Amino acid sequence: MIFTAHVNIMPLKELLDPQGKAVNESLHSLGIQAIQNVRIGKHITLFIEAETKEAAHTIADEATKKMLYNAVMESYTITVE
Amino acid sequence: MIFTAHVNIMPLKELLDPQGKAVNESLHSLGIQAIQNVRIGKHITLFIEAETKEAAHTIADEATKKMLYNAVMESYTITVE
Repeated sequence: MIFTAHVNIMPLKELLDPQGKAVNESLHSLGIQAIQNVRIGKHITLFIEAETKEAAHTIADEATKKMLYNAVMESYTITVE
Repeated sequence: MIFTAHVNIMPLKELLDPQGKAVNESLHSLGIQAIQNVRIGKHITLFIEAETKEAAHTIADEATKKMLYNAVMESYTITVE
């Protein structure tokens, strides 16, 4: 069965996000003042062949740890459907 | 009240995603064969000052359309919490 895993990888809260800051300022100059902060990360969709949802989650977790994210600068969440 | 809007911006299904393809092949060479396809996009978190969840959603939608996504190559989804 094919499961879809959604991996969100974001810069750690403690770290500056210069890209997000630049976008935030640009939104303000476009007149959208209600947005107070912007953080930009990655959204990765993995299509996984597995027997169960839990097995798919384990595979997504392994792939994320081995390759997709940088533990020093980023955190991640995984949801499988 | 501050709402958090999560915007996922992904390359359109019809388009090639060379970055995703490269990651997919690298995962295979790391021994993770169960992953059949990878798509890579952006996850943007917006912190929005608004009166209601619906108002926050409208602001997030406006910001995404005006600045964050490229209608020719990408699609997006927004969830507000």
